[in-house]
Amino acid sequence: MDRMRIVLTGDRPTGPLHIGHYAGSLANRLLLQDRYKQYVMIADVQALTDNYENPQKVRENVVEVALDYLAVGIDPAKTTIFIQSLIPEIAELTIFYLNLVTVNRLRRNPTVKTEINQKGYGENVTAGFLMYPVSQAADITVVRADCVPVGEDQLPMIEQTNEIVRTFNRIYRTDALVEAEALIPKVARLPGTDGKAKMSKSLGNAIYLSDSAEVVKQKIMNMYTDPNHLRVTDPGKVEGNPVFDYLDAFDADVKTVQEMKDHYQQGGLGDMVVKKRLLEIMQAFLEPIRSRRALLSQDKKAVMDVLKKGTLQTREVAQQTMSRVKNAMHLDYGF
Amino acid sequence: MDRMRIVLTGDRPTGPLHIGHYAGSLANRLLLQDRYKQYVMIADVQALTDNYENPQKVRENVVEVALDYLAVGIDPAKTTIFIQSLIPEIAELTIFYLNLVTVNRLRRNPTVKTEINQKGYGENVTAGFLMYPVSQAADITVVRADCVPVGEDQLPMIEQTNEIVRTFNRIYRTDALVEAEALIPKVARLPGTDGKAKMSKSLGNAIYLSDSAEVVKQKIMNMYTDPNHLRVTDPGKVEGNPVFDYLDAFDADVKTVQEMKDHYQQGGLGDMVVKKRLLEIMQAFLEPIRSRRALLSQDKKAVMDVLKKGTLQTREVAQQTMSRVKNAMHLDYGF
Repeated sequence: MDRMRIVLTGDRPTGPLHIGHYAGSLANRLLLQDRYKQYVMIADVQALTDNYENPQKVRENVVEVALDYLAVGIDPAKTTIFIQSLIPEIAELTIFYLNLVTVNRLRRNPTVKTEINQKGYGENVTAGFLMYPVSQAADITVVRADCVPVGEDQLPMIEQTNEIVRTFNRIYRTDALVEAEALIPKVARLPGTDGKAKMSKSLGNAIYLSDSAEVVKQKIMNMYTDPNHLRVTDPGKVEGNPVFDYLDAFDADVKTVQEMKDHYQQGGLGDMVVKKRLLEIMQAFLEPIRSRRALLSQDKKAVMDVLKKGTLQTREVAQQTMSRVKNAMHLDYGF
Repeated sequence: MDRMRIVLTGDRPTGPLHIGHYAGSLANRLLLQDRYKQYVMIADVQALTDNYENPQKVRENVVEVALDYLAVGIDPAKTTIFIQSLIPEIAELTIFYLNLVTVNRLRRNPTVKTEINQKGYGENVTAGFLMYPVSQAADITVVRADCVPVGEDQLPMIEQTNEIVRTFNRIYRTDALVEAEALIPKVARLPGTDGKAKMSKSLGNAIYLSDSAEVVKQKIMNMYTDPNHLRVTDPGKVEGNPVFDYLDAFDADVKTVQEMKDHYQQGGLGDMVVKKRLLEIMQAFLEPIRSRRALLSQDKKAVMDVLKKGTLQTREVAQQTMSRVKNAMHLDYGF
């Protein structure tokens, strides 16, 4: 039998997870955990690169994110969940890898370039932010992940990682590091409840896995739809209408959804009817998550124990990688 | 009684140490070790920033440098000698500090700027090289050093460290980090045997602490002097004449040296006479170092044990610093 392939995924703990995270990655992780050795990293160190002035927020969300994981069914018996800052080997690898990458190469990274513009850092970009792709290479290689689920826009990150892997293995004449393959899962990218491209905390357009039934109802009932669909009898647009995007992602009854789309486009189907259907579907989906989450959050020590166990497991693997790396770099002093 | 002040010094293990190192820093460390809690770091990680393609050289010189230390009288009972790569807390601190420094600030560092030009890196400077001042800030702060002996040209490094210390302590509302003061020792800067400003391995103009008596003789007898001092009767120049620079640094008989200088400047004192004097002085200085070194190198395990002990001591201090830092950053998970 082949060795089980190793997959690494993770999240920055900067806020609770929303249904966009679920559709975009958590759902996929539930599948992956049965077929891969899966590591899920709570990236507190990476979160600090753009939240360094707000460490308490990061700290609090570590627990929230862990609760979200467990509530949706990430199973600690199958998936190793760990906290990035507790794996010092990642920092050590990052320092070694920084010698293998030029500053200009980092500046040309398309993902980082876009983010620097979006965040308006301009010439004031911190060294920590610019070099976070190198830190990601360390995350990926420290657990010897051979595949990483990413969106198309994250492909440059995998490229950067593999460049480092190849350079390292060539210079130090080793196979200590493993190249990673991008797994581009077929997942839905959910827009915000306001129709904007992305859900985000700052825009207030996200439905959280931890939202109460009341809040979910409010958010769905106030969702953006086709602004030209004024009367029930008007034909409405399905594209760019987040209510239908959500139904596509969460309503298993594809046939009914298609019928509703057709009806909506012809005219005669009111927004309220569609939203009520979505509300029903979302509550049915969220209710078990919500109650598991409530139960879990009564015993935060148990949650921390899951993180502790996963972190210790990861450290063991990290130490093995580090010992190979240091051996290849002639940095093995034997003590 | 006041707490003993903490001093950090160190060397990149890229070659054996020479008499320039002795005059410029080792002599000073022999004084410091009686008055300070002294840490001496063998900076293998930093050496890799510009020797990443040659790790074996770095590795071999770790032992050579340690032998040099012990041979000149750095006393492990007074001075803690440690290996940088074995203190992962330095890498962890570096990653945290990188968030507190902009890329532009690093580019403006005068020491780094000069070195980038000297090494001809231009636009191909690696991320590791550009950010090595941040790594130095981690070296200094991890042992809570409050003073660092540096040359004038290294002052920007201390400034950069203290900027990071102040930013960290302000943002994370802590006094976990300590500012460091530059100790600018009154030391001689020895030129090379060829009269060039600096001794260096690549120029082949250095007298090593480990050179045999034969090699020392050869090097001194071939030393550059005043090129216009052709005949013994010609007046000679003392400035820019490395033979006199070395006498100034190593000949305790200041009066005789002054008389020789006067005589040389008036004319009538041949280079050979001065060189013979220097040879005598240098052999007397180097002989005990050489024999201690020979003795020590017969038992490399004992040398490694010194490094091991110092490294473990340093790790303890580093872990204390790290726990304060992580506490301030809300990254203390209790496991």
